[in-house]
Amino acid sequence: MAGSSFGRQFRVTTWGESHGKAIGAVVDGCPAGLLLCEKDIQSYLDRRRPGMTRYSTPRKESDEVQILSGVFEGRTTGTPISLLIPNTSQRSADYTQIASCYRPGHADYTYTEKYGLRDYRGGGRSSGRETAGRVAAGAIAARILKELGIELCAYTKSIGPVCIDMSRFEKEAILETPTAMPDRTASLEAEAYLTDCMKRTDSAGGVVECRITGVPAGIGEPVFDKLDAGLAAAVMSIGAVKAVEIGDGTAVSHSTGSRNNDPFFADESGIHKRTNHAGGILGGISDGDPILLRAHIKPTPSIFREQETVGTDGKNCTVQIKGRHDPVIVPRAVVVVECMSALALLDLIMANMTARLDRMAEFYRKR
Amino acid sequence: MAGSSFGRQFRVTTWGESHGKAIGAVVDGCPAGLLLCEKDIQSYLDRRRPGMTRYSTPRKESDEVQILSGVFEGRTTGTPISLLIPNTSQRSADYTQIASCYRPGHADYTYTEKYGLRDYRGGGRSSGRETAGRVAAGAIAARILKELGIELCAYTKSIGPVCIDMSRFEKEAILETPTAMPDRTASLEAEAYLTDCMKRTDSAGGVVECRITGVPAGIGEPVFDKLDAGLAAAVMSIGAVKAVEIGDGTAVSHSTGSRNNDPFFADESGIHKRTNHAGGILGGISDGDPILLRAHIKPTPSIFREQETVGTDGKNCTVQIKGRHDPVIVPRAVVVVECMSALALLDLIMANMTARLDRMAEFYRKR
Amino acid sequence: MAGSSFGRQFRVTTWGESHGKAIGAVVDGCPAGLLLCEKDIQSYLDRRRPGMTRYSTPRKESDEVQILSGVFEGRTTGTPISLLIPNTSQRSADYTQIASCYRPGHADYTYTEKYGLRDYRGGGRSSGRETAGRVAAGAIAARILKELGIELCAYTKSIGPVCIDMSRFEKEAILETPTAMPDRTASLEAEAYLTDCMKRTDSAGGVVECRITGVPAGIGEPVFDKLDAGLAAAVMSIGAVKAVEIGDGTAVSHSTGSRNNDPFFADESGIHKRTNHAGGILGGISDGDPILLRAHIKPTPSIFREQETVGTDGKNCTVQIKGRHDPVIVPRAVVVVECMSALALLDLIMANMTARLDRMAEFYRKR
Amino acid sequence: MAGSSFGRQFRVTTWGESHGKAIGAVVDGCPAGLLLCEKDIQSYLDRRRPGMTRYSTPRKESDEVQILSGVFEGRTTGTPISLLIPNTSQRSADYTQIASCYRPGHADYTYTEKYGLRDYRGGGRSSGRETAGRVAAGAIAARILKELGIELCAYTKSIGPVCIDMSRFEKEAILETPTAMPDRTASLEAEAYLTDCMKRTDSAGGVVECRITGVPAGIGEPVFDKLDAGLAAAVMSIGAVKAVEIGDGTAVSHSTGSRNNDPFFADESGIHKRTNHAGGILGGISDGDPILLRAHIKPTPSIFREQETVGTDGKNCTVQIKGRHDPVIVPRAVVVVECMSALALLDLIMANMTARLDRMAEFYRKR
Repeated sequence: MAGSSFGRQFRVTTWGESHGKAIGAVVDGCPAGLLLCEKDIQSYLDRRRPGMTRYSTPRKESDEVQILSGVFEGRTTGTPISLLIPNTSQRSADYTQIASCYRPGHADYTYTEKYGLRDYRGGGRSSGRETAGRVAAGAIAARILKELGIELCAYTKSIGPVCIDMSRFEKEAILETPTAMPDRTASLEAEAYLTDCMKRTDSAGGVVECRITGVPAGIGEPVFDKLDAGLAAAVMSIGAVKAVEIGDGTAVSHSTGSRNNDPFFADESGIHKRTNHAGGILGGISDGDPILLRAHIKPTPSIFREQETVGTDGKNCTVQIKGRHDPVIVPRAVVVVECMSALALLDLIMANMTARLDRMAEFYRKR
Repeated sequence: MAGSSFGRQFRVTTWGESHGKAIGAVVDGCPAGLLLCEKDIQSYLDRRRPGMTRYSTPRKESDEVQILSGVFEGRTTGTPISLLIPNTSQRSADYTQIASCYRPGHADYTYTEKYGLRDYRGGGRSSGRETAGRVAAGAIAARILKELGIELCAYTKSIGPVCIDMSRFEKEAILETPTAMPDRTASLEAEAYLTDCMKRTDSAGGVVECRITGVPAGIGEPVFDKLDAGLAAAVMSIGAVKAVEIGDGTAVSHSTGSRNNDPFFADESGIHKRTNHAGGILGGISDGDPILLRAHIKPTPSIFREQETVGTDGKNCTVQIKGRHDPVIVPRAVVVVECMSALALLDLIMANMTARLDRMAEFYRKR
Repeated sequence: MAGSSFGRQFRVTTWGESHGKAIGAVVDGCPAGLLLCEKDIQSYLDRRRPGMTRYSTPRKESDEVQILSGVFEGRTTGTPISLLIPNTSQRSADYTQIASCYRPGHADYTYTEKYGLRDYRGGGRSSGRETAGRVAAGAIAARILKELGIELCAYTKSIGPVCIDMSRFEKEAILETPTAMPDRTASLEAEAYLTDCMKRTDSAGGVVECRITGVPAGIGEPVFDKLDAGLAAAVMSIGAVKAVEIGDGTAVSHSTGSRNNDPFFADESGIHKRTNHAGGILGGISDGDPILLRAHIKPTPSIFREQETVGTDGKNCTVQIKGRHDPVIVPRAVVVVECMSALALLDLIMANMTARLDRMAEFYRKR
Repeated sequence: MAGSSFGRQFRVTTWGESHGKAIGAVVDGCPAGLLLCEKDIQSYLDRRRPGMTRYSTPRKESDEVQILSGVFEGRTTGTPISLLIPNTSQRSADYTQIASCYRPGHADYTYTEKYGLRDYRGGGRSSGRETAGRVAAGAIAARILKELGIELCAYTKSIGPVCIDMSRFEKEAILETPTAMPDRTASLEAEAYLTDCMKRTDSAGGVVECRITGVPAGIGEPVFDKLDAGLAAAVMSIGAVKAVEIGDGTAVSHSTGSRNNDPFFADESGIHKRTNHAGGILGGISDGDPILLRAHIKPTPSIFREQETVGTDGKNCTVQIKGRHDPVIVPRAVVVVECMSALALLDLIMANMTARLDRMAEFYRKR
């Protein structure tokens, strides 16, 4: 079964293994007329690039994206956009040991069970490197959304025990801390926690929050293709994510109707909600308020201590992982959550264009 | 855009409004040869039927399902199974008031923004009644999974502040308490909490947990169609769900790699994990251990007190909801979570059949 | 695998066997706001109803459609439209003989091979009766297309050796002859041919042509989802169709570039083609000229003479088909071709709405 | 809308413009374990390569395919296979003239209407060069089919007035004539006809036939996803195809039931048909006999004489096409028809694996 495509109308197909020749993505369904060049995508890729800080792997991957098709004279043509990122920093020798056993917390065992074989070099397709294709495609989606007045902003909400309150924050600060936490004091605390983790040959988890503003009311399809269902699928498909929350999320199970309901009110600018427990989505459809989601990300499974496991020969053994691994996935996952949210949202914005006959008729009448 | 279908190979399409003539579902892609009659589906529908206890609406809907196609001489034929449930208890008069305003916490406003009009009778398509179609289809999926040795078991884990530890439980008890909590003491506590909620004209939220056992390793497709992504989309698409967790879920963000990694070990029966923080899924693919997921369900938005809102005329007003509404959604949502999980899982089990060329060749060789 | 759905954004799922309780269709993705009642659909169904003339089966099926959902106060709501047609004229006794052997030209054998069992009553799902669901859904598609200024017109172009030239014809005449040939003289010839066929216990084939006018230039997606590919799939999926032609169709293989190319010219009303060998489609995308397609339909396989075949016991035998069967499928297939063309076209018209970023931005700006 | 993907379980997404940096395809859903290297794909690509004979364009494109992912140690891994073919022979200067007008018979006008702009270099995405991606993917599908005992064989059945009878032919001869006609005498006649065409600055059409043997009975899904519907969509999506026939095709409209029905008979090897008018498909499902289809291909629209047309400025003008163009598309389309047939068939073979519950249970039981 083909599982490497996401979206129906704005559809991305990613490909590539951690240590193959290259990784990439094909974006099909991009509207014609978008100004697009490599630089627009590169700025997103740079946000997930390893080797930027001491809390990410010391690999120096330039991750330079090439646009191979779908753009002509600086604009998208409506045809598939092929994006290619050469793999320049493979050191396959690092991974020879893991060829012979299943690393705990990784997909080595499940891939082998599924396919009967696996590309063990750096995790192959199950490597976090796979997300580069998502980010490249999501960068395009985000640019289109911007043309429609929609902005996405993801950031690190917590790392281990350090959690920030984001009622007020400056978007710019996200790019300025090595943790992607837009609160410099909290970021320093988180860094101290990570340093300690590394000393203990351990790793940390955390939470990424994404806020989306400017989404008009009416986006999302009833029943199965709800906006929250689409966002959940998009974000849960990111390797290390184990929980997804919308709006108040898990807190709703402890709340009551009188507290959780968001009263509507009208003013000269339209209809709004006094609170936003719902996270901008009611009945699976956007209500015009900011959309809020959180992704809970597990600690990096690659830790530098001996772990109990099983070999590919079926015998019990231990493994001591070597190589280059981040003590925390969260900071580099921030842009991935943002990009997956953009992809899910844009697809449903496209789907919504046929919701009303009068608007369809108007669309075609003026052509 | 068509949003009322779920699944690719085992595909259900639901239809119907709360107060229309009927609701139903079409199941396409059901394998031929399954013994199936109305009774098999009815037992699932009865689990979500209203009017069963004092914590669900006093409506008496028989919800009797009819199989209109796809079954011949007691067995499925491989062609679409059309399931129809007549609506017998519509009292449209109850809903005339809500025609003129947007109920807080409901989809009245967002449907109107999307479509320009809405069927206001009982919430129309956004009513919880829509889930009957999911359950009817899920009952068929669950029967097929049973033939493959897979069992699903969902239950109420918490209502408001009352939460149970389910390390040990009896499946039968789930059906015996009005809360669907398989712990009778806790259930009584939850009932007391709900009685208090009703006195305060308020409502409660809670958590549904679903455990799936017998899933072979290897189910789930890499990258976007991961098993956890499919389950998240399935469960988040249920009306009142605001968060989905897999395995340890949100707790992973506070954990460390050394605690969160599940060590592998081998014994005579195969390869297993010492713990199951992962909830039976690694890299989006089942690992052979039980699959665990939790859905966080918001409090019933229909509460019997005056609420601030906006009218369809765009003016501020208040609404006092009448009619029949449960003080908690959770007990009736249990079977819906179970059924959506079954649908998502079965679809990926089908997808997996083409994962290996040798098995494909073997499949066709003996034909 | 689910094979009973057609379309991505305007998606119909049909269900039902020839002699089950009912047949029907669910239309998902219909825009909100379309005026729709049973009568609008019934007029299409009546065009394929059996028992209308001596050249169709003497069954008297009223084929009365019921709309069970998706319409409120006379307008579509954007949610799934469930259409149900009760089966009122099943005489299963007629079909007991064919339970024990495979009728030549029918799908009895292939269904049995695929599913291991089959609903032998009247052909079950492989019966031409299945097309009623297509027509019910296609009637809705055609109504939407009409709102966009697009008209479809299908008619019988040939029956056996009798072929008409349709360069000039009156649409109304199609409904007035029992052959659906809009040329009364030719129709009488065709009727004489059919009478002769019936005397010889034989049956006839023929050609249905469909013309679609008012389609704006630009409809159809490059490469795989071309307009002609979509139309071909739609029309070839009709049971008895064995060939599909677009524009000049098979004649192009004998033509030359200088004859087959349609020169463009511009006048005050825009850009046109001097000829229309292309049938209104260039590179898979509509060019603004009328779209032309033809479906070649095989002779009714049910003929009233002894035929050589094999029994379900695997032994050679003969079969003498009884019951009620048309000597020609063509006249009743006319509306099916028209409806499938409408479904394919409408789906691509919806797909086209995201082709240009400026139009997407304009669409959302004014919301 | 995304239109560059074909297939559901075995899914190919192609990308690339005639004169961009490269063209390529991503194949997702390929089963793991297939032996695959560049050479396996190259042999198919070589069959459509230009510059091979005097009847194809004098361009010298090496069309060397690179496998960038999805293969490890010589075998497919089950993850997406990215195929890239660099464009080495772009001479954009040749195409400056056509930037300013719409070539008759080409998609210049329709792309411009759809997207508001077009990549005019060599036809951009609408160029026949796009089919290289299809062939690269189809080569993989054909290899898998071979493992299942299925062989595809396409050849030129006619060019202009020269048509061969293929009741007996040698497969090898197809590769030995410049026309892909496996009848050397006829091929010489066709070559003479083409030489004459070129003298007259004209071009020729023709017919490609494809025979598929070894397909087990039972492939194809009822109603919309019939095997013939899938093949028709696949083949009609090839640029220059204007008609698709299955089995006797257009001839059925002149036939009678008694002639067109294929009687069944049983012998020790199973159930067969005495004739094969049906082309191996009954009710949309394979019957075990060879599958036969024909594609009618229009004459090359690029002819070297002055043609009437309209400029991008909307004014009437003439165009004199320059550059390098084949006088006939047919010989190079042969492998494209074969590959598209392989893709459509393989996808339905995968879909069929869930048709029966007993076989699904057996599949999973032994795991």
